[in-house]
Amino acid sequence: MPRPHDLPALAAGVAQRAPRSLARAISLIEAGHRDADLIVAALPRGRAAHVVGVTGPPGVGKSTMTSALVTALRANGRTVAVLAVDPTSPFSGGALLGDRIRMGGHAVDPGVFIRSLAARGQLGGLAAAVPAAVRLLEAAGFDVVLIETVGVGQSEVEIASRADTCVVLVAPGAGDGIQAAKAGVLEIADIFAVNKADRDGATAAVHDLRAQMRLTARPAGAWRPPVVRCSAATGAGITDLLAAIEEHRERTSRDGTWAVRRSARAGAEVEALVRAALATPIAEAVAERAGEVVSGHRDPRTVAAQIAARFGA
Amino acid sequence: MPRPHDLPALAAGVAQRAPRSLARAISLIEAGHRDADLIVAALPRGRAAHVVGVTGPPGVGKSTMTSALVTALRANGRTVAVLAVDPTSPFSGGALLGDRIRMGGHAVDPGVFIRSLAARGQLGGLAAAVPAAVRLLEAAGFDVVLIETVGVGQSEVEIASRADTCVVLVAPGAGDGIQAAKAGVLEIADIFAVNKADRDGATAAVHDLRAQMRLTARPAGAWRPPVVRCSAATGAGITDLLAAIEEHRERTSRDGTWAVRRSARAGAEVEALVRAALATPIAEAVAERAGEVVSGHRDPRTVAAQIAARFGA
Repeated sequence: MPRPHDLPALAAGVAQRAPRSLARAISLIEAGHRDADLIVAALPRGRAAHVVGVTGPPGVGKSTMTSALVTALRANGRTVAVLAVDPTSPFSGGALLGDRIRMGGHAVDPGVFIRSLAARGQLGGLAAAVPAAVRLLEAAGFDVVLIETVGVGQSEVEIASRADTCVVLVAPGAGDGIQAAKAGVLEIADIFAVNKADRDGATAAVHDLRAQMRLTARPAGAWRPPVVRCSAATGAGITDLLAAIEEHRERTSRDGTWAVRRSARAGAEVEALVRAALATPIAEAVAERAGEVVSGHRDPRTVAAQIAARFGA
Repeated sequence: MPRPHDLPALAAGVAQRAPRSLARAISLIEAGHRDADLIVAALPRGRAAHVVGVTGPPGVGKSTMTSALVTALRANGRTVAVLAVDPTSPFSGGALLGDRIRMGGHAVDPGVFIRSLAARGQLGGLAAAVPAAVRLLEAAGFDVVLIETVGVGQSEVEIASRADTCVVLVAPGAGDGIQAAKAGVLEIADIFAVNKADRDGATAAVHDLRAQMRLTARPAGAWRPPVVRCSAATGAGITDLLAAIEEHRERTSRDGTWAVRRSARAGAEVEALVRAALATPIAEAVAERAGEVVSGHRDPRTVAAQIAARFGA
């Protein structure tokens, strides 16, 4: 359990974007504590932040890219919060610490807040914790919220796909295209960033992705993900990437998909919480009857239909 | 929808392990057709197959390893079915086709059946389709069922972890240990296979994993995952790997964890089906009220609690 806290003082600290208050409030979210919701409810509703997901396969340079985007956004006078999402592995503490050390250059900037997010205690897991943390950071008044997730696996990819704008990082080199495809990240990209653009194969990677985007069927007038060549390490192309991110925001605000996505994100959060609330009653009902399936006495579908009926389906 | 079929003829074909009948029955499972359950119910209940999961990060050599295990098992006179699980990406058809071509050497062997498995239509997704396909292959009388999944992401890792024995492949080289850890696969391994053992770093990878396994707290007498050094490409160490797989089966049969896992697997399948049956009613209830969350009128938790109450939680 998180330490006891003074709710009005914490809300005041969050409103001033005080790092310790923000960190404390996000700890409450991680622990599944209701007070995080009360803080958001207590704050005045300001302008919507631009929520940007940054994802891609391991080793593609997500942390360096996030850091480069923070630098560029700060140069434009924007305040930025970074959520580094971690799928809660007992072995991954070291990697997260590494991320935070690499972000160290921004640590003294009061316009930047950086936090790793796991969700051990949170009902509904990261699917509920990430939107809750985003709402908090938005209520705190950050202009941009960057969500960094590893782009592998259904759940992790879903988190990134629920941002207002989703940037998928790809590194040049044999097999990278296929790896990204396997993880299902190609489908969720609003923008591709081909990182490490100085490497052999960068031109080929850009061409391949553009070709794939041209071949993908889309409704007329729909956004077609641009492919931006850049280098997070040297800063080359980051201005172009930021321009593409801004263009996506303007376009989606105009054509209404911005509001549709925000509504879908809120819906996904509520759904995750509903599922979590039903998890224990369902697991108990299933445990009572798993034996019938193991013994071959009844097939899983019949048992499932009978249990679902008890829950009103 | 799958083509019309003659159920008794299909059941007879499955009982004889006729490849076309098996393939057709698995297509029914992918499409969520109830007849697959009826086939399993119609077949006599034989000996339990040994269900072995093979997983690991992309590029570690899962397909080659699966193929090497098939060769070794066939040399011991075992019949083998392989399920290559794919998280249903529209771009991944090529990769799967590649897997099947690499498996080509076994295509003419009547003691081997190989099938890719996606789950577009299946209620409950892969979490329900994989156990259903395993039950079918077990009912068909295969001695061993190998489930090959990419070891990234919560859902994909869960599928592998629900086998009787879960083999996690690791390749030597900088950062591989950390990548495996990020995906959460270290926790689910019953056996580690360090593949590409001829490469630089193989000895270090074996040592690192053994050290990590020693440092992981376990109850007294619990199975401690062995680390087997091998090369799927040359066949070196595959006999040792197979011996470890057999040893795990014997040990878990003796200490009761075999039955516990089978029960958990059946429970997980039923749960996936119950969740799927509830998905539409929950989504409808959520869609009605997402607007209240977007507008800031109500917090997600309050809305979720009210919806969950309607479903009896």
